[in-house]
Amino acid sequence: MKAIHLNNRPVGTPQLSDFKFETEEQPHITTGEMLLKAIYLSVDPYLRGRMNEGKSYIEPFELNKAMSSGMIAEVVESKLDGFSKGDFVSGMLEWKEYQASNGEGLMKVDGSMAHLSAYLGVLGMTGLTAYMGLIEIGKPKAGETVVVSGAAGAVGSVVGQIAKLLGCRVVGIAGTDEKVAQLKAEYGFDAAINYKTTENMSHAIADACPDGVDVYFDNVGGEVSDGVMLNVNRFARIIVCGAISLYNATTMPMGPRVQPILIKNSVLMQGFIIFNYMEKFAEAIPQLAQWLQEGKLTSTETIVEGFENTPQAFLDLFEGRNKGKMIVKI
Amino acid sequence: MKAIHLNNRPVGTPQLSDFKFETEEQPHITTGEMLLKAIYLSVDPYLRGRMNEGKSYIEPFELNKAMSSGMIAEVVESKLDGFSKGDFVSGMLEWKEYQASNGEGLMKVDGSMAHLSAYLGVLGMTGLTAYMGLIEIGKPKAGETVVVSGAAGAVGSVVGQIAKLLGCRVVGIAGTDEKVAQLKAEYGFDAAINYKTTENMSHAIADACPDGVDVYFDNVGGEVSDGVMLNVNRFARIIVCGAISLYNATTMPMGPRVQPILIKNSVLMQGFIIFNYMEKFAEAIPQLAQWLQEGKLTSTETIVEGFENTPQAFLDLFEGRNKGKMIVKI
Repeated sequence: MKAIHLNNRPVGTPQLSDFKFETEEQPHITTGEMLLKAIYLSVDPYLRGRMNEGKSYIEPFELNKAMSSGMIAEVVESKLDGFSKGDFVSGMLEWKEYQASNGEGLMKVDGSMAHLSAYLGVLGMTGLTAYMGLIEIGKPKAGETVVVSGAAGAVGSVVGQIAKLLGCRVVGIAGTDEKVAQLKAEYGFDAAINYKTTENMSHAIADACPDGVDVYFDNVGGEVSDGVMLNVNRFARIIVCGAISLYNATTMPMGPRVQPILIKNSVLMQGFIIFNYMEKFAEAIPQLAQWLQEGKLTSTETIVEGFENTPQAFLDLFEGRNKGKMIVKI
Repeated sequence: MKAIHLNNRPVGTPQLSDFKFETEEQPHITTGEMLLKAIYLSVDPYLRGRMNEGKSYIEPFELNKAMSSGMIAEVVESKLDGFSKGDFVSGMLEWKEYQASNGEGLMKVDGSMAHLSAYLGVLGMTGLTAYMGLIEIGKPKAGETVVVSGAAGAVGSVVGQIAKLLGCRVVGIAGTDEKVAQLKAEYGFDAAINYKTTENMSHAIADACPDGVDVYFDNVGGEVSDGVMLNVNRFARIIVCGAISLYNATTMPMGPRVQPILIKNSVLMQGFIIFNYMEKFAEAIPQLAQWLQEGKLTSTETIVEGFENTPQAFLDLFEGRNKGKMIVKI
């Protein structure tokens, strides 16, 4: 069976050669373990940080060892109480076709409630990130204006839809005309901006947000966010969830200082990591599942077929080639 | 009698010529008014923002009209219930030797509880700014490390002392060796750094904060803050109270982008303005007064004599010529 190892720590933009496919022996399980077969694998921008050396909020990947991310797996053999052959589980797993597990950190998922891949997206880490970040930090009130960057992505598209469900005016920023059209037609955004064809982001935001910006859910950082910052209202809340535009930078990214804007408008900026909100997942997942079943939440997935295409699927995230959640089907 | 008007809107660093002394007739009061004689006048960095055109959290000063700031005045004649000749009041007043007032926004102050000028400093806006910003946003816990920039200033020196009273390790940043010595000797800071003679602020902060930075009370912005930001702990809280190093900038000040740091460490950054916390003044003032009377809080004032020296006293703030609260005695 195959496993995908970290071959090099990338400098700047990751390359295919930073990954290495290794052939390993299929593991045998002992009492208290189960054998898992990988079904779906999630590639996410935050994994870029784990490819670097040095401490962050989550341990770095080790060189010459398998990488890992959120995955859905099928139990193909079990010597572990509570898990039976044919069950499906979700959790952080290694990038291997088969692996043994003692069940720690894994959650059984129900394929009849939603498609299994949804547990990596709208009912998984990305949906929870959207929900928790928007509700817990953004605290949007009906009638307020919410701006989302990376709006067509896995997190952004859910943020926008939840904000609409809460009665907000929602403006999305994305990188192609196709995505901009999708934001309005499929996700119900009130307005959307293609940052790649927009000369002056600040003016574009001002046009799209006649009452200013109350909540900014930031997935990208960089110049897109600079434009939004110039339009924030008094008491605005900024969820700093991602900075995909900066993740591959090899020198310290520079930009306009935010402090004068924060003071002038009493703005809150909060770095957001989903792992800090785990104790609230139990209340969020049923709400997301309900919206999904009622058809109030549209979940878009880009499914790449084949374990061997995992590295390329990851690299494609940084080119914006995904629509919604990027998932590899193994 | 004299009044000080805004003569020009400054571009960059303000000049004496941006102010103009005008001779006006002493006002006569009618029923429901009192005549006030200015005693003390507060000059503060935030006034720089009000000299610009354009909306901020507080209205800009008008050209060719008197400026205003926090002042202490004596009632010299009263036709207003509740105020008698000989009373002292504190509040936002115009830069005039005499003025009529209907009492709106003014508070009687008690010269027997503390020296009158204290109501512009440790018991006034700057003390309240220190207290509210530190407690409400910083939420310091005993044993945590609190860093304060502009530490020898009116706000910073009180922030540091309150943080010590709450059991924190306190590190101050100031701009002269004399101030650094004062922070340790007079205010009880655990360590202090002269940013003007420090080559690498990030290393200096790391040395002074072996357990990292949990709370950063930022009065200055700019490169000093860049160095602190590189040392923040997980869940750090940053009170963005002032950015004196940026107030006179004529182009958008640039610096390292903060978003990756905020995400990596789940950091909160909150723009702070004292005017948002007025409903909590009533609980804060008695606490500050008690600490002051018990000798637990040292209040330093730089008192400049003479109304005619008000513009220069204001300009001196940006050169760091004050120690503690800068006040003009009229």
